[in-house]
Amino acid sequence: MTTPGSQQSAAPAAVAGERAIIGRISERLPRPSPPLIVGLGDDGAVVKPERGALQVLTTDALVEGVHFDRRYSSLEDIGYRAMAVNVSDLAAMGAAPRLALWSLMLPEWVTAADVDRLADGAGQMAREAGLALAGGNLTRTPGPLVVDVTLLGAVRPRKFLTRSGGRPGDHVYVSGSVGAAAAGLSWLRSRATAAGAEPDDEGLASCVRRYRRPVPRTRLGALLGRTKAARACMDLSDGLADAARQVAAASGTGIVIDAARLPLDPAAAVWFAERGMDALDASVGAGDDYELLFVIPPKGSRRLEGVRRLLRGLPLTRIGELTRATDMVLIRDGRPGLLPSGFSHF
Amino acid sequence: MTTPGSQQSAAPAAVAGERAIIGRISERLPRPSPPLIVGLGDDGAVVKPERGALQVLTTDALVEGVHFDRRYSSLEDIGYRAMAVNVSDLAAMGAAPRLALWSLMLPEWVTAADVDRLADGAGQMAREAGLALAGGNLTRTPGPLVVDVTLLGAVRPRKFLTRSGGRPGDHVYVSGSVGAAAAGLSWLRSRATAAGAEPDDEGLASCVRRYRRPVPRTRLGALLGRTKAARACMDLSDGLADAARQVAAASGTGIVIDAARLPLDPAAAVWFAERGMDALDASVGAGDDYELLFVIPPKGSRRLEGVRRLLRGLPLTRIGELTRATDMVLIRDGRPGLLPSGFSHF
Repeated sequence: MTTPGSQQSAAPAAVAGERAIIGRISERLPRPSPPLIVGLGDDGAVVKPERGALQVLTTDALVEGVHFDRRYSSLEDIGYRAMAVNVSDLAAMGAAPRLALWSLMLPEWVTAADVDRLADGAGQMAREAGLALAGGNLTRTPGPLVVDVTLLGAVRPRKFLTRSGGRPGDHVYVSGSVGAAAAGLSWLRSRATAAGAEPDDEGLASCVRRYRRPVPRTRLGALLGRTKAARACMDLSDGLADAARQVAAASGTGIVIDAARLPLDPAAAVWFAERGMDALDASVGAGDDYELLFVIPPKGSRRLEGVRRLLRGLPLTRIGELTRATDMVLIRDGRPGLLPSGFSHF
Repeated sequence: MTTPGSQQSAAPAAVAGERAIIGRISERLPRPSPPLIVGLGDDGAVVKPERGALQVLTTDALVEGVHFDRRYSSLEDIGYRAMAVNVSDLAAMGAAPRLALWSLMLPEWVTAADVDRLADGAGQMAREAGLALAGGNLTRTPGPLVVDVTLLGAVRPRKFLTRSGGRPGDHVYVSGSVGAAAAGLSWLRSRATAAGAEPDDEGLASCVRRYRRPVPRTRLGALLGRTKAARACMDLSDGLADAARQVAAASGTGIVIDAARLPLDPAAAVWFAERGMDALDASVGAGDDYELLFVIPPKGSRRLEGVRRLLRGLPLTRIGELTRATDMVLIRDGRPGLLPSGFSHF
């Protein structure tokens, strides 16, 4: 939690000391829960593991200029999203969020009020997800703002989900809708707008909110794991096409996705169509939706109905099937073609 | 473990896909130990907590241009050091290293061979420390290379160390010697030398190695915690003056350090003296030593002797005392003065 120090240059004038910053952050995040024995301010956090539970660890960074743009998202949004994308990874494993470690890399321009905004947004997601801040690290950077988050989650033995449990014949489902975040980002880019701006159209405004503040499907993931309804699961952080490919590859199967069944967000579909863009391509290739893709055995529909009833309205749409042949197929207009490769970071 | 993707620009040409990079990294790090149920390649790592143990979580980032300079350290050194500084945080808590999460932010210039070098160095430290790689995250960055590491360690209940357990009258100790890393860095700066270069003088060469590849005091930390010899402990990542201040502040005491007792590295003392620099100032204010500062009760010297015997030669030097008055004092040439404020990141 301490930062090794050498080769130091001038410090950001507006930020008043690591201790003060940590204090401001911790005020804005939920109080540590009982399993945390030592929290912020020591070399490490000391945690008492939950009796009988397994732990899930995940880490994901948001880098300015790669994962966010301050013209499109406020610092509150960025703090919120940095937590949310990690909560989504836990959701995909069926795990409940418990503790967060924050590693912040702060450029010169960051003021104390900016740190407050990041922490306010992170605090909102943390409260929604039931997360407490266990610790972290602060460092200056000559580069872009980075919010790197590590989460610790909990799950019962044999109740967690991986990408690799699918079998040929399993049905492929996706939660919610796809394409909304991509449409929201597309709208923001078309305006190069101020961070607070929103479209007049309510459907499109909802897309912008989905982009800025993704909603991790924590409850769905936990239910799919606990009830053993799903055999494999992954979130759509890198897009639906990527998730479909990853789950099939990890399960040693192929996959067929039927484009006609995809639950495209209606406002997103209109937005892309009006711009002469292919809504399907724009939606399956783009990341940021943070829905879950999961597979259930052919005879598993009763368990899934049980999960569906508990979700109170979140759509779960069957979009395809795992196959013995290891091809990755997208059926469009009745014709099979290659499932696009999702977004690649490298 | 997946990276949220949007606002992407061109990808580094020389690096061949996230999956391939993860494969190269995992080849170079120790195999996961039994408590790891799901490792690399899923949304999160699934860990079975050790029966009856508490867990310690710590995170620390190395940022190019802030914490390292590629003119002074090879990529192997940087990978090694990124692990070592985190292992040192666990050592300061008395915890044994178990699992690592790696979050890498890779600029355009990074090649696949560069990633191999980072992983080779990290792998060396991981093997020395008994760490396995549980997961991580890769992302491109328009900024500097960042190696952000999160470690999970294990410690028995009531056997861990914090900064806050000291009481007035406790004796303050430091392990090993101080100033070596600062002298090593000073030598490297004086040469602006190639990453592999080393001084002819063996003492100074040892200082350079201490800077490039710090040796975390894992065994000392574990013994101090297990035997309850120490009441409080912290590593010297931000320098001796900083550690002394932090332990005293967290313990609600003052501290008096006697400069005459400080175990200055002899080669470092000569190096600084020859340059007309004050060796004491250069050594107590500089980070990177990664020794441990700890306090023992006045009647605790027998327990400490037991620890000392098990360490086979690592010096443990009494350098001062915690006080009821909350002043932070450094005695030089018999005169009390203010203990310097240590390195500040902001």
